[in-house]
Amino acid sequence: MSKFKVKDALKLRVDKPFDFTDYDPASTPGFTGDKKDLKKQAKRFDDELSELQELLFANGRALGPDAPAILVILQGMDTSGKGGAVKSVFSVFDPQGTTTVGFGKPTEEELEHDFLWRIRNHDPRPGQIVAFDRSHYEDVVTQRVHGWVDEKEINRRFDAIRTYEKELADRGVRIVKAFLHISKDFQVENLLERVDDPKKYWKYDESDVTERGFWQDYSRAYADAINRTDEDHAPWYILPSDNKKYARMALKFLILEALREMDLSWPEADFDPEVERQRILASK
Amino acid sequence: MSKFKVKDALKLRVDKPFDFTDYDPASTPGFTGDKKDLKKQAKRFDDELSELQELLFANGRALGPDAPAILVILQGMDTSGKGGAVKSVFSVFDPQGTTTVGFGKPTEEELEHDFLWRIRNHDPRPGQIVAFDRSHYEDVVTQRVHGWVDEKEINRRFDAIRTYEKELADRGVRIVKAFLHISKDFQVENLLERVDDPKKYWKYDESDVTERGFWQDYSRAYADAINRTDEDHAPWYILPSDNKKYARMALKFLILEALREMDLSWPEADFDPEVERQRILASK
Repeated sequence: MSKFKVKDALKLRVDKPFDFTDYDPASTPGFTGDKKDLKKQAKRFDDELSELQELLFANGRALGPDAPAILVILQGMDTSGKGGAVKSVFSVFDPQGTTTVGFGKPTEEELEHDFLWRIRNHDPRPGQIVAFDRSHYEDVVTQRVHGWVDEKEINRRFDAIRTYEKELADRGVRIVKAFLHISKDFQVENLLERVDDPKKYWKYDESDVTERGFWQDYSRAYADAINRTDEDHAPWYILPSDNKKYARMALKFLILEALREMDLSWPEADFDPEVERQRILASK
Repeated sequence: MSKFKVKDALKLRVDKPFDFTDYDPASTPGFTGDKKDLKKQAKRFDDELSELQELLFANGRALGPDAPAILVILQGMDTSGKGGAVKSVFSVFDPQGTTTVGFGKPTEEELEHDFLWRIRNHDPRPGQIVAFDRSHYEDVVTQRVHGWVDEKEINRRFDAIRTYEKELADRGVRIVKAFLHISKDFQVENLLERVDDPKKYWKYDESDVTERGFWQDYSRAYADAINRTDEDHAPWYILPSDNKKYARMALKFLILEALREMDLSWPEADFDPEVERQRILASK
């Protein structure tokens, strides 16, 4: 059995033109093995991840606006495991360097602004890792599926999204966009859990079943969004997610790669270590 | 060897009138054992903590403003381990239900408002656990030590703090205030690490040594702040912190107790589980 590698995660980058039919949500590309192997393999870079995140944070402190940052954008059908994936990856990081933002239905105040206003409010600061659980992609998918906006407006939004993501990249934000790809049958299992287990009632929303009727429309709208916004500076990865732990491992490795690629160094001392050593000792 | 219990952590509640001389920063009240025991004991409620945090979050979603929340306020001298304590405790939680806020030197915009303005901006929302790494207590300690504000203003601020914390408590926010108590000698060790290890240079601030000259003034100002703001709805705990892992365990258990005391239930279904079960199956 060979190990799932960072480069296996990178291979999940979308192939264009993209169409969901080519992707099996139950597959685990690059990984063979059982649950126990998966658990073990997923953890093997945790120390490195933790150190690299501290390094990124340290650069944020030392360099200010010149330091890079990471923005992770998660999309997927209901119950695809976006929240669990963030939890699993972020638990190895220092919470002072990370933020998770869930974008639900826009509030009245948010609706008074252009769709990117609430998104920009949560732009990652230098040195930070931010995860968006849903994002501006809702505005070109959900709203399109239901015909709440016309195609002209959809085109305007795509332009705005492309400009926005380019802006972010230009100022040093590495963007990782992941689509958590589940099957329609797997969603049934997940929804049944929510109505069968009283500890999960709070997660259940009757409209989730209604939305299932639009599965094909969602798939089409997502495929179009992915085809129109996948860029080397803002790549899309399709993570097969019927095996949730596999998807979490893949996401973790993608973030690891983003951190490695920054090739950061620990900030130089802005003081004379020997002089300070003596000052500290003299202050005893 | 007996185990360190939640009630041992509760015993760290400050005794008034409080004075640091009665508290040994190197002690580990309620705990005897070695590092390995400590590591093991500190983790034994992690599953419960994780579940209770999810329960709190679920209540936030279901009840909105009526749901409780937790605010953890951490204070302590430089290098007392506030950031590490938050990281250690929060790593068991779901990041979408927690926020960490570090309060550094106020920005210009913040200085244009009253001192509580920037604090209120980060009030915990219902269902959330928020940690303040430094807080409004800086405004009645650091600024007082350096004589940047007069005693009349200090008194006004204490009144404002008491009112603010009472307001929070009245709307269901449980407040846990912890002072991470280290010795002057332990601080020397920590500062030396920062000038000796290039990976820690970024944490070093020359002014930390200067501030050591005010140690007694800080101790007096903190003792006064603690005496004037310790309330049953906003209690102060003094965590001996020369043993960082002990302090982290104590903090974790205090948050556990806050969660347990809420005695929450999983939100009721706002749907008919059997009807929804059939709807889900019919949507296959």
